[in-house]
Amino acid sequence: MSVQPTLPDTGDPGRHADPVFTMHRGGKISVRPVVDVADHRALAMAYTPGVARVCTAIADQPELAADYTWVSNTVAVVTDGTAVLGLGDIGPAAAMPVMEGKSLLFKRFADVDAVPICLACTSADEIVATVAALAPSFGGINLEDISAPRCFEIEDRLRHLLDIPVFHDDQHGTAIVTLAALRSAARVAGKELGQLRAVVAGAGASGVAVTKMLLRAGIGDIATSDSKGLIYRGREGLNPVKAALAAQTNKAGLTGSTESALRGADVFIGLSSGTVAESAIASMAPGAIVFALSNPDPEVHPEVAGRHAMVVATGRSDFPNQINNSLAFPGVFRGALDTRATDITEAMKLAAADAIAALVGTDAAVGYIIPSQFDERVAPAVAAAVAAQARAEGVARR
Amino acid sequence: MSVQPTLPDTGDPGRHADPVFTMHRGGKISVRPVVDVADHRALAMAYTPGVARVCTAIADQPELAADYTWVSNTVAVVTDGTAVLGLGDIGPAAAMPVMEGKSLLFKRFADVDAVPICLACTSADEIVATVAALAPSFGGINLEDISAPRCFEIEDRLRHLLDIPVFHDDQHGTAIVTLAALRSAARVAGKELGQLRAVVAGAGASGVAVTKMLLRAGIGDIATSDSKGLIYRGREGLNPVKAALAAQTNKAGLTGSTESALRGADVFIGLSSGTVAESAIASMAPGAIVFALSNPDPEVHPEVAGRHAMVVATGRSDFPNQINNSLAFPGVFRGALDTRATDITEAMKLAAADAIAALVGTDAAVGYIIPSQFDERVAPAVAAAVAAQARAEGVARR
Repeated sequence: MSVQPTLPDTGDPGRHADPVFTMHRGGKISVRPVVDVADHRALAMAYTPGVARVCTAIADQPELAADYTWVSNTVAVVTDGTAVLGLGDIGPAAAMPVMEGKSLLFKRFADVDAVPICLACTSADEIVATVAALAPSFGGINLEDISAPRCFEIEDRLRHLLDIPVFHDDQHGTAIVTLAALRSAARVAGKELGQLRAVVAGAGASGVAVTKMLLRAGIGDIATSDSKGLIYRGREGLNPVKAALAAQTNKAGLTGSTESALRGADVFIGLSSGTVAESAIASMAPGAIVFALSNPDPEVHPEVAGRHAMVVATGRSDFPNQINNSLAFPGVFRGALDTRATDITEAMKLAAADAIAALVGTDAAVGYIIPSQFDERVAPAVAAAVAAQARAEGVARR
Repeated sequence: MSVQPTLPDTGDPGRHADPVFTMHRGGKISVRPVVDVADHRALAMAYTPGVARVCTAIADQPELAADYTWVSNTVAVVTDGTAVLGLGDIGPAAAMPVMEGKSLLFKRFADVDAVPICLACTSADEIVATVAALAPSFGGINLEDISAPRCFEIEDRLRHLLDIPVFHDDQHGTAIVTLAALRSAARVAGKELGQLRAVVAGAGASGVAVTKMLLRAGIGDIATSDSKGLIYRGREGLNPVKAALAAQTNKAGLTGSTESALRGADVFIGLSSGTVAESAIASMAPGAIVFALSNPDPEVHPEVAGRHAMVVATGRSDFPNQINNSLAFPGVFRGALDTRATDITEAMKLAAADAIAALVGTDAAVGYIIPSQFDERVAPAVAAAVAAQARAEGVARR
């Protein structure tokens, strides 16, 4: 089953006639001066000799860099091109259009100056060393489309190493928006989060992060599966990340397939590239919630899921309830940069999810569990919640 | 002797009243979208799912990255902050205002999207590894304010390693503009380049590069000095770069001070932070040419030099004949990017110098040996000359 995206259908006449390619020609972002250097006097202020005064002031008092450079408003969007969208390991050059798109959204939704950085290295050691070397140039690091399990180690090491926020969006952006949507969906279904039993298909970056976040948010129980089936305590050959997951999830010790675990479950969250049979959806509890988030092909077509589930969401813009990271990352970084936070903590991520859910609030309905990406309230609300939590936790520097 | 720059004299009331700081507040550059994402349809083209088409096309045909990303119009302005302006090793954070200024000029003069990158590492190995890792993200690398002699090794290794242009501006930008100015000055003085005897004070990045470039351009003889005096064959303790210089320069085997070598010399080029006595300038040959390029304090005040020399230039905007890199680097990279050149060769640098000198041509006069930084003809002329030479040499990819 393949769902066709709402994109211009050009009948594949080649890229020259495809408006998607036309839009991408020459790239989607640009660097622009924000000061005018119209004459020698202005040039002498913006560049030599005047700029030396600013350099000297920062050398004497390093915290002035945040006031007199663009650094405190910037984020590096860093990838190694190993897990790009659903396309897999396509390399750094082919990953650039996604990173540019991300930079565009950072500016569009939260006025963050984001720079796409596609790396020619893939080992954790090399990526950590490179990003650490770049760190003085940026106010935050958004890791993107780096394959699991390296992404976990890379993020952990960089968070410890650097005094600026490091945030792997495939993990936490997805987790934040998923939790926000689940809060609204549970409200619609008349269920409490603590009573829900969920099944997460996929134990890559997003599957692991969503599982952890739902645990932190107090979900009743959750079972997560990978390509070999459900993850349970004692399953052989689990990597350390999955072993840690097994210790905290799947209270009933279910084994077998994702579909078998859906019997009687309240929530299905698809973050794999797999499919789920209609019969498995039909076996879920009454008032079931189905988030089929794989892109471009959801694990189950939303119309099929809708025959059995009460609330259905996808990652797609052409169906109701689109669960998309762009609701989270712009505001999360805006809040972190505004407070010059040293980290984006778990509590800041939970605060972001709550802020998104609060915008829907009691308006929540079967077809409205998450705000539109164009809802201009979202990024400011997320930023404010993240900033408040940063201050409450003492990770804010202002 | 200190020359006061033509900057607002605020009587040092602190940075809050200083318009230089006001101009720098929040930084001098920004990342801007060049496509509009006003609705879901546009978003679906610029980002997921549409962007996947472009990624897939590039994965299949890597050269398409140049057409459908911003990479082919970008330059990374990379420093480690070890030799910033005349301020020395002030570190990466304090170097950022200069790198932003450079990015601003890249855009202003040549529509190049330049990203300032200030590195937290200083060893040649680390800098080479970091820049190599970044390379897929950029169309060219402008190395900046990296101290000698590491700058030579770093540039050499990166030029061999990467298939995009790598250009250390402190070396080659200075050398290009100095040669251009010297061509005009020699014309004014009625002398042939091949008959000139020059003295270069300073054997850092720019002193070495200027010396090499003037040799390549066919200057009669040239003697270069460092803090220990003139460099000559057999001088003890020369590093490999200076030993190579000694082998090609100072035909007369002069020893002793810079000032002693000026007796009877035609050209003085100051690229140190030192001073030169008026009596030494007075001892030069009739029709002498003095380029006192240290910033903000020239080696000799231009009015003092003007009592004895025929043509005087500085690095300052508040005297005639400002020799400034910004006449070179924007056009050099424009030409390299336009042809997707794999390198910026020595012949391309000579072509850039000749193009700048040609704009002055027979208009050359004592007070006009180099175009203004605001002469809009400069960057296009340099770009065209660099591009033509790239094609002639076979380093162009289009």
